[in-house]
Amino acid sequence: MEIKNVKGTKDLFGNEIANFQYLNSIMSQICELFSYKEMRPPVLEHTETFVRSVGEGSDVVRKEMYTFLDKGNRSLTMRPEFTAGIVRMIVQNKLYATEVLPIKAYYCGPVFRYERPQLGRYRQFNQFGIECIGGNSLYYDAEVILLGYCILSSIGLDNVTIKINTLGDDESRENYKSALKDYFKDKIDLMCDDCKNRYEINPLRILDCKVNEDQKVVKDAPKMRDYLSQASKNRFEQVLKVLDGLQIKYEIDDNLVRGLDYYSETVFEFHLTSKAGNDYGAIGAGGHYDKLISQFGGPNLSGVGFSFGLERLVSILFDNNEEVRENDAEIFVLPMEEKYNSNAIQLSLSLRINGYSTNVNYENGKLSSSIKKAVRANAKLALIIGENEIESNTIIVKNLVDEKQEEVKLDDLSSYLHSLLRHHHHDSDKCECCYGDDDCENHHDERD
Amino acid sequence: MEIKNVKGTKDLFGNEIANFQYLNSIMSQICELFSYKEMRPPVLEHTETFVRSVGEGSDVVRKEMYTFLDKGNRSLTMRPEFTAGIVRMIVQNKLYATEVLPIKAYYCGPVFRYERPQLGRYRQFNQFGIECIGGNSLYYDAEVILLGYCILSSIGLDNVTIKINTLGDDESRENYKSALKDYFKDKIDLMCDDCKNRYEINPLRILDCKVNEDQKVVKDAPKMRDYLSQASKNRFEQVLKVLDGLQIKYEIDDNLVRGLDYYSETVFEFHLTSKAGNDYGAIGAGGHYDKLISQFGGPNLSGVGFSFGLERLVSILFDNNEEVRENDAEIFVLPMEEKYNSNAIQLSLSLRINGYSTNVNYENGKLSSSIKKAVRANAKLALIIGENEIESNTIIVKNLVDEKQEEVKLDDLSSYLHSLLRHHHHDSDKCECCYGDDDCENHHDERD
Repeated sequence: MEIKNVKGTKDLFGNEIANFQYLNSIMSQICELFSYKEMRPPVLEHTETFVRSVGEGSDVVRKEMYTFLDKGNRSLTMRPEFTAGIVRMIVQNKLYATEVLPIKAYYCGPVFRYERPQLGRYRQFNQFGIECIGGNSLYYDAEVILLGYCILSSIGLDNVTIKINTLGDDESRENYKSALKDYFKDKIDLMCDDCKNRYEINPLRILDCKVNEDQKVVKDAPKMRDYLSQASKNRFEQVLKVLDGLQIKYEIDDNLVRGLDYYSETVFEFHLTSKAGNDYGAIGAGGHYDKLISQFGGPNLSGVGFSFGLERLVSILFDNNEEVRENDAEIFVLPMEEKYNSNAIQLSLSLRINGYSTNVNYENGKLSSSIKKAVRANAKLALIIGENEIESNTIIVKNLVDEKQEEVKLDDLSSYLHSLLRHHHHDSDKCECCYGDDDCENHHDERD
Repeated sequence: MEIKNVKGTKDLFGNEIANFQYLNSIMSQICELFSYKEMRPPVLEHTETFVRSVGEGSDVVRKEMYTFLDKGNRSLTMRPEFTAGIVRMIVQNKLYATEVLPIKAYYCGPVFRYERPQLGRYRQFNQFGIECIGGNSLYYDAEVILLGYCILSSIGLDNVTIKINTLGDDESRENYKSALKDYFKDKIDLMCDDCKNRYEINPLRILDCKVNEDQKVVKDAPKMRDYLSQASKNRFEQVLKVLDGLQIKYEIDDNLVRGLDYYSETVFEFHLTSKAGNDYGAIGAGGHYDKLISQFGGPNLSGVGFSFGLERLVSILFDNNEEVRENDAEIFVLPMEEKYNSNAIQLSLSLRINGYSTNVNYENGKLSSSIKKAVRANAKLALIIGENEIESNTIIVKNLVDEKQEEVKLDDLSSYLHSLLRHHHHDSDKCECCYGDDDCENHHDERD
């Protein structure tokens, strides 16, 4: 009678979700420092939104989209990526006219791709990313890369190399595509079916082929760099110079073309090697795009952005012992009989108002098993309410770490807990200026 | 050539999304204080997950689900609510065996219902809610209501009344359903088609009918309270007593049955009246359930939970002037020529590392238009880099509020900004103990 989750989806809970929260919080903090604001396009878009932008030649559109007809016979698609939706909403809401340019947006949420499930790859996974839209300076390319770099080092992943390439402007790319077609003309019949398809729709994509035999053929193909216009060449050199100035490590990768059709000029990937020397490959990627905004009916603006896959990053955090632990409630209130439950609910409310994360055992039961429950829940203190305590207006505070216990007057409880738990508060991500003290002005600002 | 968003979906950005972030942050803070942890079930579930739990008789399952076949011919549904997915994941991952009971979960994310789009109602909307699963005490019902109550008062919505009812235990409900069938037997032919359907599948649902004519018939129907078992009657009275003790206002509503099939015993809604006297109706709802966990193949545990619709709450915040504003970057760096862009990217990086949200105009251009841009972006200070400044190792700091400007040595910039912006930092939600000072220990804990 059990129903399972859908193949390729993942249930998030416990320490794992604590790390998604942690990543999300670090990423949005850094984005806000760089003056990025969150934008949230819907999960569902008209299928055309992705066909037009991600491109008919891409694997994503050709094979991987969750597309269906709704009850009103519209062809809808669950987003396989965010950029198309962000651009669609900027154009539709005319934000290019009302906001200061460039518009700087970050996003975080689930995306959906019907891929073969593999270790660490899911059909529903979470992406975090940014888009900087409507700036002309190549410095925005560099700043976008810098922002991604800052995020990775903030979470302890600092051995990062940027693989970078340029796809040039339209002219460069058309020349290059012709050169590729010439080169592959008498070879394409022996290559994989995907490549045959790519040859027709977008020969650039052949460079990205993962089939071993095909890669050998790709190795000697003409290089983009030999077909760049002078303007694209200069632009690329300048981007690299800015990265040099920022001491960001990069490697030029001639075959880097990325799997989405909308890129032009700079494309890049974040490559990570762990302290132990493990090569994690590309953990995030992005690039510059010139046509996307006008393709959606907006003005002639360019953009640049990247995205990270969160499932991947979380598993790398665990792998490198850089993960965070979930925060358990510090206090477990144990009313010893049902008739003290009303005291317990009042007491726990006032503890919570004072900033202490608190659990209550309304099931009562024997003291020893209640204590065990509190220990299993990783509480630091058990607050025991029994007949004696009610009569004398006291409470027993049992330290679950050193097992000492003390009877404390209810009137003194607040300052007693304050002295016991203040160093714990230091370690947690709660308000660190007042340890949940009611008198603190800052605290009131936060919570009222 | 413009593509629009899908009917019934909503693009979130600007001040609106700032309020979603604000709600999410308040809600998760309060949940953590009550010892709830986030759980995130997937958006996609097997259709059976919702049919089994939400129920074949419910409008949600009968008319509103986004259901489709995936490329592997599975019938999938985009979640119309969270409870079913949370319960499915607790059972599948056997959390009832490994975690301390009750399991306390909160969730936040998009849900999907194909309803007729109306003002403030969307086909993709966001729900926030909690589930407390595996507790026997009725105090968990009360604590769940209390938690919802705390959230609403924390965001300034304090004129809340709980509408509450009991659906009793199985025995009570079966007796009551028979009584309803008897009562409606000779009336159902004149009622709406939905009610005819409800009559067969779940006559309780008739009480919920929104058709005017039908409501007149419903008015004189038998009342649940006259069919309650003694145990259910006692349980309900005790829940009300606990709410009395917590000074939570409630009204008993005999016709409150909720639209999902899984509830038993306590059901409730949060009703809000604004300070100006506007009645917003139900802004959140929930209840107790006995069978859901075993229906999914788990043990015989009960649960209780509620959910809020975030779009609704955000529009109420705006309506009541309780909304928050988005945080704009405080500092706008203005390099006056392209050759100073590399100075600007370095300077802005160090400002950001010091906790100042900073924007940069890499487009250069005339001073007056750059200043206008910074003003439009709501920056408080413009930092101007020109030839004189580079030569003398200084920078011009222009206060965009009072329009005063000063030339500041780069070495003194940090303390100068500190003194200018510290009161701004007080108003924002940045670290409030050190104003972004590098020397502060707390700050390092947070950001390194």
